[in-house]
Amino acid sequence: MSVVDTVEILKGRTLTDEEYFKAAVLGWCVELLQAYFLVADDMMDTSITRRGQPCWYRLPNVNMIAINDAFMLEAAIYRLLKTHFRREKYYVDLMDLFHEVTYQTEMGQLVDLITAPEDSVDLDKFSLERHRLIVIYKTAYYSFYLPVALAMYMSNIPESYTAPSPSSPSQSETVHPYALAQSILIPLGEYFQIQDDWLDFSGTPEQIGKIGTDIVDNKCSWVVNTALALANPEQRRVLDENYGRKDGNKEEKVKQVFGELKVGEKYAAYEEKVVGELKERIGRIQEVEGGLRREVFESFLGKIYRRSK
Amino acid sequence: MSVVDTVEILKGRTLTDEEYFKAAVLGWCVELLQAYFLVADDMMDTSITRRGQPCWYRLPNVNMIAINDAFMLEAAIYRLLKTHFRREKYYVDLMDLFHEVTYQTEMGQLVDLITAPEDSVDLDKFSLERHRLIVIYKTAYYSFYLPVALAMYMSNIPESYTAPSPSSPSQSETVHPYALAQSILIPLGEYFQIQDDWLDFSGTPEQIGKIGTDIVDNKCSWVVNTALALANPEQRRVLDENYGRKDGNKEEKVKQVFGELKVGEKYAAYEEKVVGELKERIGRIQEVEGGLRREVFESFLGKIYRRSK
Repeated sequence: MSVVDTVEILKGRTLTDEEYFKAAVLGWCVELLQAYFLVADDMMDTSITRRGQPCWYRLPNVNMIAINDAFMLEAAIYRLLKTHFRREKYYVDLMDLFHEVTYQTEMGQLVDLITAPEDSVDLDKFSLERHRLIVIYKTAYYSFYLPVALAMYMSNIPESYTAPSPSSPSQSETVHPYALAQSILIPLGEYFQIQDDWLDFSGTPEQIGKIGTDIVDNKCSWVVNTALALANPEQRRVLDENYGRKDGNKEEKVKQVFGELKVGEKYAAYEEKVVGELKERIGRIQEVEGGLRREVFESFLGKIYRRSK
Repeated sequence: MSVVDTVEILKGRTLTDEEYFKAAVLGWCVELLQAYFLVADDMMDTSITRRGQPCWYRLPNVNMIAINDAFMLEAAIYRLLKTHFRREKYYVDLMDLFHEVTYQTEMGQLVDLITAPEDSVDLDKFSLERHRLIVIYKTAYYSFYLPVALAMYMSNIPESYTAPSPSSPSQSETVHPYALAQSILIPLGEYFQIQDDWLDFSGTPEQIGKIGTDIVDNKCSWVVNTALALANPEQRRVLDENYGRKDGNKEEKVKQVFGELKVGEKYAAYEEKVVGELKERIGRIQEVEGGLRREVFESFLGKIYRRSK
């Protein structure tokens, strides 16, 4: 829906049936890209369920064939693009964008896999900086930048254009709208994932629709990384001995340390700070005919700010 | 080397350093595509070694991360293409070609996986027609058509051109050189794989540099499919009971049936027939300035005909 909504905002009007269809095809291409990653990630993480059903690789007669199935999900993206966008002048841009974002996501997945292997806990590998790297590459590019950039290409937003300077509006400056969109959407994606990490720890099952397992799964979450940055030697010892273990008592000890360290207060402070910065950046966008619009980003931010599920 | 050799034949001269470099980059992209498939195929087949070394996924600290490594090998193709071909007018053709051939190979791999699963033998699923489908999609497109088509794009061979008609040279006809190349290279690739299957059964380890394991591995090989087409009910029973089992005695029984059915004579007859047809098709190519050249195909055929390793 992000692609469709963004095209609508950029065009400033309801879409024709053909425009809606094309934007929806691009949206489905994002879904196919995610499906490709998730089928593979579930195998690499030996996950059991996904969206309340058995993971694809766990079905009878699938098993390792799921690797080839993941490849085919990816191949479907380029078949859809060719079928529906071959004759558009931005066809090559769509392909370059999918290639670039796919590569970035794979790099993020690699860093995640070597930082937090399921079977060996080593909190020395964790840090807030490492968490940031994983989140930006593994999630933010494909979930936040990709749908907006696709919508921008479909709306014929050029690589650069001229707009009044935000500081002295009588002067004009060159805008690089794709880089500008990235400079807002990547921190926004990081914020979304930090929220996700926070809700995994603090949310009730009724709220988040699942039971949080980041602690027992040795996940390189924002919560444990924040705790590691604040812990005294004794608290650090408790985390080292109890994080990432399939044991409810050990999980409780970790949660107690998170409570002692007031990670919730850190989260609230982080949220207010990042939202302020994002609003400031969005506010600096100078809207010109045929260019970016603030509403694209305001709409995303509005859906995310202080969400509890 | 197929890309470099083909560009040289099409240009009719030694390449400049820059031309050689670009053709070599395309050749390495083919190698990366193969590496991507093989890393994944070895996992899906639970193979032990590849090219005399442990398969990548079997190395310590790799395991399932090899899935993501396979993805990254694929991503490297598009990074190389972007770095070296972004400004060429055939850049989009190179991407379309890699996407198409990747998809075809994945389809071939899927048909192979569901036809000849390692752990359940069912010769009813086998047939020469099924073998042909697997070989063409899984191997011929990426090994034979892909390098030549890449070289053709790099040599600016157009999508279509006019040439004298082979039957009445005073008249001219429209040539579709990429379809024409495919009509020769796909049967050529099929022939190459049938040879490979035949050598796995008949070649000595000194000849082929490995010990053939197609029979014990339940491979959907040309040899067993030819035998199945010829077997009487008693021979079929022997094949059903002994093919695809990890047991030297059972393998010997299968080999004895292959001998009784004179599969070697069928192979020799197939080889002469297909080579005759290929030479005929190659001979019909009308060479015009800036178009295809017979030598491209003659060179491939010369390297393959009656090879014994």
